[in-house]
Amino acid sequence: MVFALFHESQPLSFFYFLGILSMKKTDYQLIIIGGGPAGLTAGLYAARGRLDVLLIEKGATGGQVLVTDWVDNYPGFYDGITGFELMDKMTAHADRFDLEKKFANVTGMDLQGEQKKISLESGEELTAQSVIISTGAKPRKLNIPGEEELSGQGVSYCATCDGPFYRDQEIAVVGGGNTAIQEALHLTKFASKVTVIHRRDTLRATAILQEKAFAEEKIEFIWDAQVSEVVGNDEGVESLNIQHNDGSTSNLPVTGFFILIGIAPNNEVLPLDQLESDEGGFVVTDHEMCTKLPGVFAAGDIRSKNSRQIINAAGEGATAELSAEHYLSNLGDSAE
Amino acid sequence: MVFALFHESQPLSFFYFLGILSMKKTDYQLIIIGGGPAGLTAGLYAARGRLDVLLIEKGATGGQVLVTDWVDNYPGFYDGITGFELMDKMTAHADRFDLEKKFANVTGMDLQGEQKKISLESGEELTAQSVIISTGAKPRKLNIPGEEELSGQGVSYCATCDGPFYRDQEIAVVGGGNTAIQEALHLTKFASKVTVIHRRDTLRATAILQEKAFAEEKIEFIWDAQVSEVVGNDEGVESLNIQHNDGSTSNLPVTGFFILIGIAPNNEVLPLDQLESDEGGFVVTDHEMCTKLPGVFAAGDIRSKNSRQIINAAGEGATAELSAEHYLSNLGDSAE
Repeated sequence: MVFALFHESQPLSFFYFLGILSMKKTDYQLIIIGGGPAGLTAGLYAARGRLDVLLIEKGATGGQVLVTDWVDNYPGFYDGITGFELMDKMTAHADRFDLEKKFANVTGMDLQGEQKKISLESGEELTAQSVIISTGAKPRKLNIPGEEELSGQGVSYCATCDGPFYRDQEIAVVGGGNTAIQEALHLTKFASKVTVIHRRDTLRATAILQEKAFAEEKIEFIWDAQVSEVVGNDEGVESLNIQHNDGSTSNLPVTGFFILIGIAPNNEVLPLDQLESDEGGFVVTDHEMCTKLPGVFAAGDIRSKNSRQIINAAGEGATAELSAEHYLSNLGDSAE
Repeated sequence: MVFALFHESQPLSFFYFLGILSMKKTDYQLIIIGGGPAGLTAGLYAARGRLDVLLIEKGATGGQVLVTDWVDNYPGFYDGITGFELMDKMTAHADRFDLEKKFANVTGMDLQGEQKKISLESGEELTAQSVIISTGAKPRKLNIPGEEELSGQGVSYCATCDGPFYRDQEIAVVGGGNTAIQEALHLTKFASKVTVIHRRDTLRATAILQEKAFAEEKIEFIWDAQVSEVVGNDEGVESLNIQHNDGSTSNLPVTGFFILIGIAPNNEVLPLDQLESDEGGFVVTDHEMCTKLPGVFAAGDIRSKNSRQIINAAGEGATAELSAEHYLSNLGDSAE
């Protein structure tokens, strides 16, 4: 039909038309940065609500959850589900409403002003009236032999998620902060013994948590020591090799190893000078997911908050998208 | 074994022992009030985390969602799912971790002080160290013939949820506030025509929303009029009978009817003098779901917020429960 329309026109018109066809769309009502549970849910809501929306993801949609062995607490999947399968379903859900996705690396953003600008590694520049930041976070790692290979097979970075899998087993925790000690206490509800390994001889955790940990019979401490290797096989973790500060070494048999030494935001490409962030580099929002910049929202693990779970990331993605819709519908006509 | 232990003791000891066996547990670490998506998720997290927890629900678990015909936007169930089935799965999920539930009417609460008190209609008094309020909300109804019968069959109270089902159809909206007009604009993305029926001759919505609505070709207005009856059959809504303020009547053929005249909190049993609530009677929390009372949290539709969706209610349930755990683990030993 295109050829039928143009076959008697001048060659110039024909090429002009081809040029328009190949021109890429670069301006959107909403751009979502990051395709984990928060970004996918925002994308599902936006696409279903027929917003002019683009989701940009640097790897594969699903984020951290993709490498999560087993998700036992996403409400509704009552027998549990693999992280991969859950993210596959969430992606399919957004795809059902034809969410436009772009797999690309973002290199910079200017989020001030009414028109938000997103620069890609390819040199392309995209613009949008509103932006949802859902770039996620990652647990800090020890970077020791065996850690990566046994991740999800006994090595865990989340006690809330994985603690219940270690009923009546002997496990270890590394870390000395509030999270590590609170989670060590939490893990005593499941494990028969929890050994806390700390590289110093005192904890950073608050006095009340320390008191409780010292009083808890199931908790033992190994002070002034670091784990040098996670030992295991195809069936999971078997033990930890420990390097003591006095130069000696030892081996601790455990089936679970919780590395609770902090979490780092994926904020490398965010304009932190324009946004408000906490001391850890996470983006501060109000309870409607609004950042301090009008038209800019954040959802999921990148937010400054206490608990990072798949279900609250997804919930925040929906809230952020509805806040973006509210923002867009109250913009002046120039923005339509 | 019990009889073996006691068969040679005095009768008194035996009856004393029976008395202890029949004494009901009344004190908990956490009591959750309300078993919709927020309460069930909090319950799932608490039971899985082995907290000493009780969920109180006055009807059946599932809340408003139980009577939701079709849920198309709960991430992961990518083909959609009935509200009943989704709540069945969420309930089964919490049951898998042996969440203790009590079906009872709460008549009063005292949430000040370290020990929270919950009174039941039966006269029973329960206590807890922490409480999550997830009593939900309900849309305001017109209370006209046909409304209840055709609810979920063409009558809807949520444009975000149900708008996409009305592609290329003629629908009507009742209401004149910000929500009604914003949603009427949103619905033009799907419907071929949206008639806004309003009982006055002016809207309460902001100027910018009014401007947009008046400029939108798909939106028509019927002023000074009220819907007196929803007409339909087994297959759904067919038309609306309209009563005009001048005494005349008319009939408007539509397949969808959105009643957007507000939402009312289920706050009848809440101690509103102790909590902070907004002008609509919804409970104010921070973004970690903490109310102004230590140890008291709120999640889901009962919260003061802009968007009420199943997925964000569930997410808030998880956040509230983790905030409660954090609160409990930082309590003094007396509270253990």
